[in-house]
Amino acid sequence: MLSWEISSSSCNQETNLPLSPQLVEDNGLLPCEKNMDEVEEKSKDIIKCSAEKLSVDEVSQLVISPVCGAVSLFVGTTRNNFEGKKVVSLEYEALVPVSEASIIISVSSAHRVAPLAAVSYAIDTLKAKVAI
Amino acid sequence: MLSWEISSSSCNQETNLPLSPQLVEDNGLLPCEKNMDEVEEKSKDIIKCSAEKLSVDEVSQLVISPVCGAVSLFVGTTRNNFEGKKVVSLEYEALVPVSEASIIISVSSAHRVAPLAAVSYAIDTLKAKVAI
Repeated sequence: MLSWEISSSSCNQETNLPLSPQLVEDNGLLPCEKNMDEVEEKSKDIIKCSAEKLSVDEVSQLVISPVCGAVSLFVGTTRNNFEGKKVVSLEYEALVPVSEASIIISVSSAHRVAPLAAVSYAIDTLKAKVAI
Repeated sequence: MLSWEISSSSCNQETNLPLSPQLVEDNGLLPCEKNMDEVEEKSKDIIKCSAEKLSVDEVSQLVISPVCGAVSLFVGTTRNNFEGKKVVSLEYEALVPVSEASIIISVSSAHRVAPLAAVSYAIDTLKAKVAI
C-alpha cells in the first residue's frame, strides 16, 4: 500500500476549507474549541492508495480521535449500470468489481457540520479533477 | 441486537426526502434511473439497536448495492470534552466509552448528492428529537 501523510495542521484549520459561502453561512462552522482538559491533537491529512480491497472501518479509524465527536464518510462504489448499459467492472489504473469501493473519504471534527461539508467538498473536487 | 426493517419503498422515493429547497435546486437531485440491464432492487430502511460495539463496515454493507454508486455515512462518537470539562464516558440507555461510536447512519444511492444530503438530514433530525 502506498501511503502519504500530506500535511499536519492545527485543529482549527478545518474552517479554512474552501466551502461555498452559502454553506458557511447556513451551518455556522465553528473552529475546534480548545479547553484545558482535552488532549490537543494535531490534525492529519492522509492519502492512501491500495491494490487491496478498501475497508470502511480502517479508514474511519484513521480519523477517529478523543477530541472529535463526528466522523463523516463517503464510499464510492462501482454501479452495475451506466447510461442504460450493464457494467461488469471498472478499469482505470486498477480493476474494481461491481459493488466494491474504489474510494473512501473520511473526515472527523468536534461537531458534525464541518465534516459533513468537508466530505461533500472533497468528493465534488476529486470528481471534477480526476476521471473516476 | 434489536433490529427493525421499518419500510420498503421503491428506489426513486429518495427524492421525497424533506431537503431544503436550496439543496434540491443546487444539487439537482435525480431519481434512480431504471434501465433494462440493471437488477431492480427494493430500497430498505433499517434501524438496529445494539449493546455491542458498532461496526462501520457492517452498517455500510447493509446499504451497498449493485445499482448504487455512492454511500454516505455519519459516525457519532463520544468526545472527551464538553463545555470545558473532561468527559470520561456518556451514559443514557447505554454506556458509551470515549472515541466509540454511539450512532452510525448510512445511506446509498445511484449518485452521490442524495445520500450526502440524506445523512445530514437524518443526523440533524435525530439530534433535534432525541437527547443524544
